[in-house]
Amino acid sequence: MFNFESDYTEGCIPEILEALQATNTEQTGGYGMDPHCDHARSLIKKAFGCENADVHFLVGGTQANMTVISSILRPHQGVLCAESGHINCHETGAVEATGHKCLALPSEDGTITAAQVEEAIVRQRDDESYEHIVQPGMVYISLPTETGTLYSKKQLSALYKVCRKYGLPLFIDGARLGYGLAAKANDLKPKDIAKLCDVFYVGGTKVGALFGEAVVILNDGLKKDFRYHIKQRGGMLAKGRLLGIQFEELFKENRYFKISKHAMDMAEQLRAAFEEKGYQFAYRPETNQLFVVLSNTQIKNLRKQFAFHTMGIIDATHSAARFVTSFMTTQEGVDALIKAL
Amino acid sequence: MFNFESDYTEGCIPEILEALQATNTEQTGGYGMDPHCDHARSLIKKAFGCENADVHFLVGGTQANMTVISSILRPHQGVLCAESGHINCHETGAVEATGHKCLALPSEDGTITAAQVEEAIVRQRDDESYEHIVQPGMVYISLPTETGTLYSKKQLSALYKVCRKYGLPLFIDGARLGYGLAAKANDLKPKDIAKLCDVFYVGGTKVGALFGEAVVILNDGLKKDFRYHIKQRGGMLAKGRLLGIQFEELFKENRYFKISKHAMDMAEQLRAAFEEKGYQFAYRPETNQLFVVLSNTQIKNLRKQFAFHTMGIIDATHSAARFVTSFMTTQEGVDALIKAL
Amino acid sequence: MFNFESDYTEGCIPEILEALQATNTEQTGGYGMDPHCDHARSLIKKAFGCENADVHFLVGGTQANMTVISSILRPHQGVLCAESGHINCHETGAVEATGHKCLALPSEDGTITAAQVEEAIVRQRDDESYEHIVQPGMVYISLPTETGTLYSKKQLSALYKVCRKYGLPLFIDGARLGYGLAAKANDLKPKDIAKLCDVFYVGGTKVGALFGEAVVILNDGLKKDFRYHIKQRGGMLAKGRLLGIQFEELFKENRYFKISKHAMDMAEQLRAAFEEKGYQFAYRPETNQLFVVLSNTQIKNLRKQFAFHTMGIIDATHSAARFVTSFMTTQEGVDALIKAL
Amino acid sequence: MFNFESDYTEGCIPEILEALQATNTEQTGGYGMDPHCDHARSLIKKAFGCENADVHFLVGGTQANMTVISSILRPHQGVLCAESGHINCHETGAVEATGHKCLALPSEDGTITAAQVEEAIVRQRDDESYEHIVQPGMVYISLPTETGTLYSKKQLSALYKVCRKYGLPLFIDGARLGYGLAAKANDLKPKDIAKLCDVFYVGGTKVGALFGEAVVILNDGLKKDFRYHIKQRGGMLAKGRLLGIQFEELFKENRYFKISKHAMDMAEQLRAAFEEKGYQFAYRPETNQLFVVLSNTQIKNLRKQFAFHTMGIIDATHSAARFVTSFMTTQEGVDALIKAL
Repeated sequence: MFNFESDYTEGCIPEILEALQATNTEQTGGYGMDPHCDHARSLIKKAFGCENADVHFLVGGTQANMTVISSILRPHQGVLCAESGHINCHETGAVEATGHKCLALPSEDGTITAAQVEEAIVRQRDDESYEHIVQPGMVYISLPTETGTLYSKKQLSALYKVCRKYGLPLFIDGARLGYGLAAKANDLKPKDIAKLCDVFYVGGTKVGALFGEAVVILNDGLKKDFRYHIKQRGGMLAKGRLLGIQFEELFKENRYFKISKHAMDMAEQLRAAFEEKGYQFAYRPETNQLFVVLSNTQIKNLRKQFAFHTMGIIDATHSAARFVTSFMTTQEGVDALIKAL
Repeated sequence: MFNFESDYTEGCIPEILEALQATNTEQTGGYGMDPHCDHARSLIKKAFGCENADVHFLVGGTQANMTVISSILRPHQGVLCAESGHINCHETGAVEATGHKCLALPSEDGTITAAQVEEAIVRQRDDESYEHIVQPGMVYISLPTETGTLYSKKQLSALYKVCRKYGLPLFIDGARLGYGLAAKANDLKPKDIAKLCDVFYVGGTKVGALFGEAVVILNDGLKKDFRYHIKQRGGMLAKGRLLGIQFEELFKENRYFKISKHAMDMAEQLRAAFEEKGYQFAYRPETNQLFVVLSNTQIKNLRKQFAFHTMGIIDATHSAARFVTSFMTTQEGVDALIKAL
Repeated sequence: MFNFESDYTEGCIPEILEALQATNTEQTGGYGMDPHCDHARSLIKKAFGCENADVHFLVGGTQANMTVISSILRPHQGVLCAESGHINCHETGAVEATGHKCLALPSEDGTITAAQVEEAIVRQRDDESYEHIVQPGMVYISLPTETGTLYSKKQLSALYKVCRKYGLPLFIDGARLGYGLAAKANDLKPKDIAKLCDVFYVGGTKVGALFGEAVVILNDGLKKDFRYHIKQRGGMLAKGRLLGIQFEELFKENRYFKISKHAMDMAEQLRAAFEEKGYQFAYRPETNQLFVVLSNTQIKNLRKQFAFHTMGIIDATHSAARFVTSFMTTQEGVDALIKAL
Repeated sequence: MFNFESDYTEGCIPEILEALQATNTEQTGGYGMDPHCDHARSLIKKAFGCENADVHFLVGGTQANMTVISSILRPHQGVLCAESGHINCHETGAVEATGHKCLALPSEDGTITAAQVEEAIVRQRDDESYEHIVQPGMVYISLPTETGTLYSKKQLSALYKVCRKYGLPLFIDGARLGYGLAAKANDLKPKDIAKLCDVFYVGGTKVGALFGEAVVILNDGLKKDFRYHIKQRGGMLAKGRLLGIQFEELFKENRYFKISKHAMDMAEQLRAAFEEKGYQFAYRPETNQLFVVLSNTQIKNLRKQFAFHTMGIIDATHSAARFVTSFMTTQEGVDALIKAL
């Protein structure tokens, strides 16, 4: 059985386990104030070319999203996002639980446009009853999106320009950022990310770590007191060094990008094979998640040998199957799947 | 200048001012525990045929909505409502500020259907990741809706049946309930309302009172400790009798329904005149709010003599104008408007 | 039966009822944007000598407190207050319901000192684990306090100096501000209030109005978007003019201060009588609330003729009885009570 | 340098690292629904003799506390706890951020008594203004407490009896539960814990794990939908098995209790040595945290060789030094400290 269900079905890159072993009896201070966290911070800042950023380590994505968002918004403000955005659909209302509305914008491919954001801001501001309507206070996007699609440099630049025009911070959820940056279809460099938003996070959980996300705050106005928020929202690990050690290993020797590239190579082979055989994709096959339209019979047959999710019904006889590659996907598994098609 | 802008541009029915005068030096206990509140409670329970209900007086609609909703839901639950529902659009995120997501359902006329509600409940329950999705915990409707439309007895019965099937309380926002019940197009009696939901409120602010809404809790399971919630959300008036006195006067001699009928008579005359002259309505003209498609020139001309809002652009040369009648609308004003058309 | 239970057992000054009558058929815009509110705002700003302030009208005290406090604090901040402060004791956790901790300081007479506030701020800042402790973000006091005591100009100046030193806004709950300012023991003028804090509110409910509190924001940094908060917290009255009309009448011809002075004259006579007869006070008898130590037998006897609350047990045979005067207290009632002692 | 600063300065027991290594390429489902979590659940239920309990794994203590507490309370309720309780002092207001007040009871040694709890419940219920006061909705204790002290079986039984009498769930924060149970001064067995409360958690972070706390819900009424709350509060780990694997290893072969016993043996030696040399303790030295009164000179000298915190000033020349042992404390370190005294 080869598993293409998700990018979090296994553990982590071996270097992380080795480092945990090597450091196990070291004694360090808690709560993220240790040499490993410091080193990891400097590696990340270097990789993204943002020496003045603040870097914080959180445990998971939902936690990172709600902590960042609730630290930025005032009570009467909401966060603009795609209808399909993770915060709007798959976090059990974590953002609302901190008091804020997700202001969902329609989206077919998971992205939102500069024009949509501007229109939403202006519509609220120009409404006669604007004080009775939640004020857009920031913008959230995922890169790649929940459906595996990307923003081009041009799109992201336009979006950020609108955000700056109206003074709304732009926050990028990078749960799968590595895969996005390693994609052939991508034209954004790490340093572009750090120039085209106010906060982003570098996903570890789905990209080689056991767990952990690195929040990078670029905008000076958003840095103050962020550690209080981490603690209040339950994200401050007593043995904070566990996160430091993991991100140290991920960003040593460019590993984060190398393992992402491996996953994308695997995905590329699959994409090419699906295309060659004439399969349709439910969403643009740009990153490590491929949503392929299969007949229910094909799905049934493939499931004898492969694990994968179906994500939505296309018609009476077809569904969208999702195949996900990761840092751990093997050539053997990919070959087997291609052969089985 | 005749004013058709809204049903809260003037004060109240004269009997309320007389009663405030007559009771001004009376000494009573505070916080809604006085003889006037008690009397008003019994009048309302009689009018709606619900002797076992609990009746509470709150100051305004947003307050009533958020207090009721946050008293019912558990933290991981949200409230199903129409996309155009007041709680979703015009309360500055008051429900989200108490921690809960508004689960908006598409609606063209402001109503939602039993089928939509069932589908939403089932979709969440059957989703593989159901625990990552906000659980529908109750249903909110407005009667009449924000666009002046009504639910038939059949529609409301079907909706309530689904709610009971899945154990979700149904809450009716009755900010303009009087006008709804007095409408020709309506087939619901006051006693039907009290049989076809778990909580509703009788709007006073827009129907003859200076301010105030009477929340009627029918479902025993929702009654406990409600006064704590009122206090916590800032809705407990020290001189609570002010609300009691107002609802006493509104429900003496059937006044609430009589003044609502007056407003609807005025609206009916307008509706008939608009129809006769071939105007289109943006929404079904069922209650005291008429949304009429007018050319921008017509709007400009009418505004010389009449005050009214425009609520949405139809095309380059037309908009929807809203004409609202109320307990205070005069025959003179209606005649003038009909003449001007 | 003469009633000394509270200052909200009756209605309002007659001029308010007359004005409600006179304006009943006037048509105005809603939500506090009408000529009466504007006029009331200018009268209040003049009375307190703060032409640049923003003035907002809210319905009640709990609502004013939670709206102001939640509009100021960031999520990780709390509000310093006296242990006996209204927000800490008698608002059913309204401030906590907006996400913030009340940071209670011990107090014997209801006041808190500059030294206490400074100590609390410094202790948190200097704690090794300061990020694990709620950060003091503002200071709340009541003037007069819940036990009827006052701050001297010297005390308030010292408190405000500490607040400014550490950048914490000072908020004064003035539910009974009129009585405080009219007290013989008081040396603060209205204009001092407006110079020695960042926000305060002028209580109407307990000082001559039917209901309503006027929030006065002095600090420019706290003004932005405040109306959104009012709406979100349920405090924006559709017929907002009701509050404007009431505060217009209260501040015409200096009435607010005159009626407060009347209440204080009544209280002074009682205080003098209690003192003369050798009674002890549980708290300094400085304003319109007198807490007198009486034997349980005396209490029982007095209750045949007078209504009043007991507020705490002194010993097996004595309790503290609270006698409250108001704008409506009559000389006749005071004479009767003095005679009965 | 020997480190007695805390019980979270190092990594974990070696078996956990071995298991992480051994399972690294295993493919499992996410979010705590994997065989390791299931196995760990059954080991914990067996160890505490509570076959019908629900066991959930969360990442840290603050998260466990706020998730459990906010899942239990209704909006108008608060949680009774010791003034020195972790939720009241060292979680940056995490409980308040979910909308609930910590109702702090005075405590000299970190424990609260049945009598205190009953008195608090009754005082609120019997207050004339009870609806204006936060309603006690549950009770939180730490075992051991933040100052290292214990509840006897008699004390805990009495406390739980009061809780059941008034229908308030009792929640035990067991961040250091292992050390508590292994203490000589303790007379509670694991099975007693599971009989004398409604929910508790078994701390992993401070007792041998890298991170993680196992929440054990005993009361059927509190079990429903708990996983939604975990997700919403950011505590649901994608690779949930990480927690399962750790608790599997901790509870295999009784390890949790064995390593706790080791820490307590080390603490006992220290306690005996301190006592023998006539030192005073700031709190009863019952578990793995010893608070010893030392002169500032002694502290200075000891710090040349040992790392430890000071936790409060005793007088001008003395402070309380905290020495903490853990599953990793060595005999060598203890011997060195004893020698240095």
